Amino acid sequence: MPDFFPTSHELTIREIVALTRAVPRLGVPLDRRIGNIAPLDTARAGDITYLDNAKYLDALAVTRAGACLVVPRFEGAAPNNLAVLVTAEPHRAFVAVARALFPSALRPSSLFGGTGRARSAQVHASAHVEAGVTIDPLAVIGPDAEIGAGTLISAGAVIGPGVAIGRDCAIGAGATILHALIGDRVVIHSGVRIGQDGFGYLPSPQGHQKIPQTRRVIIQDDVEIGANATIDRGSTRDTVIGEGTKIDNLVQIAHNVTVGRRCLIAAQTGISGSSQVGDFVMMGGQVGLADHVTIGDGAMLAAQSGFMSDVPPGGRFMGSPAQPAREYMKGIALLRRLARGGKRGTRDGEGE
Amino acid sequence: MPDFFPTSHELTIREIVALTRAVPRLGVPLDRRIGNIAPLDTARAGDITYLDNAKYLDALAVTRAGACLVVPRFEGAAPNNLAVLVTAEPHRAFVAVARALFPSALRPSSLFGGTGRARSAQVHASAHVEAGVTIDPLAVIGPDAEIGAGTLISAGAVIGPGVAIGRDCAIGAGATILHALIGDRVVIHSGVRIGQDGFGYLPSPQGHQKIPQTRRVIIQDDVEIGANATIDRGSTRDTVIGEGTKIDNLVQIAHNVTVGRRCLIAAQTGISGSSQVGDFVMMGGQVGLADHVTIGDGAMLAAQSGFMSDVPPGGRFMGSPAQPAREYMKGIALLRRLARGGKRGTRDGEGE
Amino acid sequence: MPDFFPTSHELTIREIVALTRAVPRLGVPLDRRIGNIAPLDTARAGDITYLDNAKYLDALAVTRAGACLVVPRFEGAAPNNLAVLVTAEPHRAFVAVARALFPSALRPSSLFGGTGRARSAQVHASAHVEAGVTIDPLAVIGPDAEIGAGTLISAGAVIGPGVAIGRDCAIGAGATILHALIGDRVVIHSGVRIGQDGFGYLPSPQGHQKIPQTRRVIIQDDVEIGANATIDRGSTRDTVIGEGTKIDNLVQIAHNVTVGRRCLIAAQTGISGSSQVGDFVMMGGQVGLADHVTIGDGAMLAAQSGFMSDVPPGGRFMGSPAQPAREYMKGIALLRRLARGGKRGTRDGEGE
Repeated sequence: MPDFFPTSHELTIREIVALTRAVPRLGVPLDRRIGNIAPLDTARAGDITYLDNAKYLDALAVTRAGACLVVPRFEGAAPNNLAVLVTAEPHRAFVAVARALFPSALRPSSLFGGTGRARSAQVHASAHVEAGVTIDPLAVIGPDAEIGAGTLISAGAVIGPGVAIGRDCAIGAGATILHALIGDRVVIHSGVRIGQDGFGYLPSPQGHQKIPQTRRVIIQDDVEIGANATIDRGSTRDTVIGEGTKIDNLVQIAHNVTVGRRCLIAAQTGISGSSQVGDFVMMGGQVGLADHVTIGDGAMLAAQSGFMSDVPPGGRFMGSPAQPAREYMKGIALLRRLARGGKRGTRDGEGE
Repeated sequence: MPDFFPTSHELTIREIVALTRAVPRLGVPLDRRIGNIAPLDTARAGDITYLDNAKYLDALAVTRAGACLVVPRFEGAAPNNLAVLVTAEPHRAFVAVARALFPSALRPSSLFGGTGRARSAQVHASAHVEAGVTIDPLAVIGPDAEIGAGTLISAGAVIGPGVAIGRDCAIGAGATILHALIGDRVVIHSGVRIGQDGFGYLPSPQGHQKIPQTRRVIIQDDVEIGANATIDRGSTRDTVIGEGTKIDNLVQIAHNVTVGRRCLIAAQTGISGSSQVGDFVMMGGQVGLADHVTIGDGAMLAAQSGFMSDVPPGGRFMGSPAQPAREYMKGIALLRRLARGGKRGTRDGEGE
Repeated sequence: MPDFFPTSHELTIREIVALTRAVPRLGVPLDRRIGNIAPLDTARAGDITYLDNAKYLDALAVTRAGACLVVPRFEGAAPNNLAVLVTAEPHRAFVAVARALFPSALRPSSLFGGTGRARSAQVHASAHVEAGVTIDPLAVIGPDAEIGAGTLISAGAVIGPGVAIGRDCAIGAGATILHALIGDRVVIHSGVRIGQDGFGYLPSPQGHQKIPQTRRVIIQDDVEIGANATIDRGSTRDTVIGEGTKIDNLVQIAHNVTVGRRCLIAAQTGISGSSQVGDFVMMGGQVGLADHVTIGDGAMLAAQSGFMSDVPPGGRFMGSPAQPAREYMKGIALLRRLARGGKRGTRDGEGE
């Protein structure tokens, strides 16, 4: 079966040692060539792997990897013939090697193997496309749009009137970008919808009247947005995604929201209108924020938690409605004890 | 940076007073021209703003807005030089002005700045397209489809065979509409998927067998459907979305569901097969309804709540599984007290 | 109003009896022709319907259906003039008839009424398209892609470089398939996104660094994937969806996940990175799995439940965090009793 990222480049273990500052165990063949990455159990002679978790020590004993990055305390557990590279952070070193071996995996590339502008793409005469832009077949670029050098517009993507996209971005297949200003090195995956109307209506006897949504979406540099995520434009304030923030698939960001810098927002999370998220915030999957909520810098919100009120900087919260994590876990534990009436319940739910 | 809805139209304060029936404070310059809307803190000389919440009184004191709509009790707090317009419903008046200033924001417009049929659109010879329809580049309209006058089909949208769309609708970029009948003045945003098979299978020794889904999706007049939402067609009954209902991004509506008139359904909510939702129902984000559940008229379902049984008309429910809101909040409060063992916990989750 | 699946084929009751092994009540007109399916309340003379739930006995008394499949215990309740067919499994028999009457509803068909390759489709010269493939207008098929005989690529779908799709598949409008190998008879609905980067980053002082995602998505035979669902490709292991598994709309499957055979996964569920789901697992809507979680064969996970740890084979779990279903229900019941302080609460949430 084909590989989509075939080995195209190799590093010697000597080069890997220089790159990662890992320390090779005595006798490691520094001229051995490594061309791929793999987990311990499937790694072969040309692959590098890593171990930082005692759970996988059994796999270490039988791995056929060409090299293995390990923490110092596992060095002794490795078989003698394994090329062991010792480092305090094996996963970080592994990622560094992976990034060196597979530069083409760091950013999406053309889906048609092309460069330049596909003839079937529809680019408005008034659009400003810099040199070095790749436009895949059947993409649409509207009037007065601007696309910076090095950017890829994938097949079927639609860039609306006046949208500005910076340099070295990748816009995924079938994505729609309207009423937005996009920075440099932004990656937007397939099917993302940016800049449509926020969800704002005024009830009236004649039905729900649309509240005009006249502002924009601002996506700062180095943001990545997952497939089929949606980001609405603002009503009276811009919706803003801060520098370096990474957003997973199927996330919803409502109008007027500000998300700070270098946040990580996992899949299917929803952030309601006018909420403010600080810098370095982490959200698990399926988190929900009500509107007008403020989340402090560095807060960590557990998966499926729900927020109707503010979270202080550094807070760790769980549950719906969310509580400080320790308090929430105490409540859960207490309820389980009470429900069991003092005896321990079974864990399979069937055997009672 | 560009504005996507630049000031193109102005109203005098006199015209605003006539439109909103607000009462100008003595000395307000009735000939002053207002061309834009803004929040208190960012408003400038040509902008109108509003205040109806004591939380923002500080901003009122320093706003530079050209006019400000306020409730009577805040009139005294406004600086003397501010053009204050007094009204019982400042937000409603503000929206009325916004709608008058930005008529182009009330409905999506062509992404290619065009009117008529783009040459690259693929319109089947048997489709019936009325005069005054705008079809953006690379849209696809299938055999026997019907599109009413004044409707916009955005770039890359796909209208399946036999689908009928009424007048003055807007169908977003990359949306797919199959097996559906759509009323007038319906707005469907980018990436919406309407009319695919419902999720129905019959387990068998040969695997899960598809249950044929032979009915339709009916979308009544004045419905709006958010980006990347999905609405499945019925198996033996039509899936119906009632007049004037507004549905947010990433909502899932399963086969055979009926949603009544003028509901508001927030993002990422899911309604399972054959459930019945009444009129004027409001659902927060990430709500879940099991199948065959009935929700009474005017019910309010809190964000992240989950429903396995019916809700009476006017019911206010929270939690998963959902309970009447007051009962649910009592349970949450009780559990927190028990878990704290009598002492008050901290709120940051870190400082304990 | 038009029907999208008009009656095109009829079966006599005799043929239906032969197909379903149901037993006709004395006097049933075996030559009567049945051309459509319907629920009890809307069925007409040419329609077949069924009853297996006492809740609908009233509708049985007045149905105008041309034939009705019932369980033995309801036979006596049917009016004398109704053509009653007795079977232990009326719904199964009904589905069998529906499948026979509407073979065209078993798989999506061309949205342009065509066969062969639409002239506006963009098929790379190096792609290998077998005979008998239908390619709708404005689809894009990248370099070295392979499409098996009998497969439909709908309007606007994008098939990336090197992707292999088997025979008799249907790929929905606007779907994107990258870095993937797809089996036979797979149905992928509109807007599905397969094969984009998994959500993997390494925090660093320079920002979150992308962890290369170099593996694939493997979709085995007879899988169906709902509209706007997303499936990421693996980082160091392939993401795999097992044979016969059915996935509903807006589901998220993260990198390195394995889902087993013949699972049913309802809408808006999210499965985080590297989790392992066994065979015959059923998940309700909006379920969430954390990363590295293992779900045993045959487990049933209730809607909105959340999993941070493993589930044994056959386990039935509810809640977030999830517990064995009985234990969870006990806790909920206990909390409600405590909160009510001994008196029973009302059910409408307003009348207290």
